Amino acid sequence: MSVSDIDSLIQHLSKLPGLGPRSARRAALYLISNREKLMEPLGAALATAAENVKNCSRCSNLDSNDPCHICIDPRRDVSVICVVEGVADLWALERTASFQGTYHILGGILSPLDGVGPEDLNIQDLIGRAAKENVNEIILATSATVDGKTTAHYITDRLKDCGVTVSELAHGIPVGGELDYLDDGTLSAALKERRST
Amino acid sequence: MSVSDIDSLIQHLSKLPGLGPRSARRAALYLISNREKLMEPLGAALATAAENVKNCSRCSNLDSNDPCHICIDPRRDVSVICVVEGVADLWALERTASFQGTYHILGGILSPLDGVGPEDLNIQDLIGRAAKENVNEIILATSATVDGKTTAHYITDRLKDCGVTVSELAHGIPVGGELDYLDDGTLSAALKERRST
Repeated sequence: MSVSDIDSLIQHLSKLPGLGPRSARRAALYLISNREKLMEPLGAALATAAENVKNCSRCSNLDSNDPCHICIDPRRDVSVICVVEGVADLWALERTASFQGTYHILGGILSPLDGVGPEDLNIQDLIGRAAKENVNEIILATSATVDGKTTAHYITDRLKDCGVTVSELAHGIPVGGELDYLDDGTLSAALKERRST
Repeated sequence: MSVSDIDSLIQHLSKLPGLGPRSARRAALYLISNREKLMEPLGAALATAAENVKNCSRCSNLDSNDPCHICIDPRRDVSVICVVEGVADLWALERTASFQGTYHILGGILSPLDGVGPEDLNIQDLIGRAAKENVNEIILATSATVDGKTTAHYITDRLKDCGVTVSELAHGIPVGGELDYLDDGTLSAALKERRST
């Protein structure tokens, strides 16, 4: 009753990451004033996605189909698996359009403090894929944080007996980065892994 | 097909004010991982609001009912009308819980540069309400900008013959504001309109 339809819309919008109560009110007003162009299509997109989007049974990617469009793409190189923490990382790598292999999503990262152990992640499946499929290389693209590095170490250890090459992303100066603003760790890594021009 | 369900969701989310492509992706992932708790309720809230929310034929407020809950509330003082630019301003005043009168929403502000003239605003209706209803006072709560002041002036002029008291919001130091950070205009206004303690 009364304004509750708007209020409930604002309340739900304000739960989205990045939207506080003020921006949720602004978004709600914007939606109401663009009812046909945005509000109804957004509602429909939400319903469709809620119904159709599922995890790929092979790599855990989110997609409307299972296996996902990357796993069934015949142009992708199935002999290379890139291991990432989450779907957002997969999307980031896909945007670069420079990786033609397949992915494996861990669904998180080892974190003893948060109580996340190996059994909470998709690691067993990865070992299975490395053993069963014709995999030559596994690229560990976890974050360059302590937890990310620990996870990569752990996986490397588990993959030891599979006979696949295990690699990790290169460290170095970000493209466009200024030396003066870089941290010491990145600079020493870039120096250590210098290459001849 | 393929990822298009997620992509279309992200695309629609990124059109919301305050959400860019990156935060829209984050919001979409958050929605998908909270399917039952957030995604479906948000979709339902959008559909309900799209269907039910309309403008009050009296004050132009957005509400599920027409007239709106403020206009039909018997506890509200219909002899005082507060004139605001938009629904967001009405909400801001309602949050203060310090106004017990009714509202009138202009739906914008006079702005010759943007081609907004008096005929584009809800001004004629306001004159009608001032003449017909038992109105004692009209509070002009437009923004303290040049356009807002111009709009207030114009409305004051139009209301001259209606025999109602026309007032505007006080200028002064914001509650909690530090003198050092205030602009000159606000400070002089606060000084000029000082009151005995």
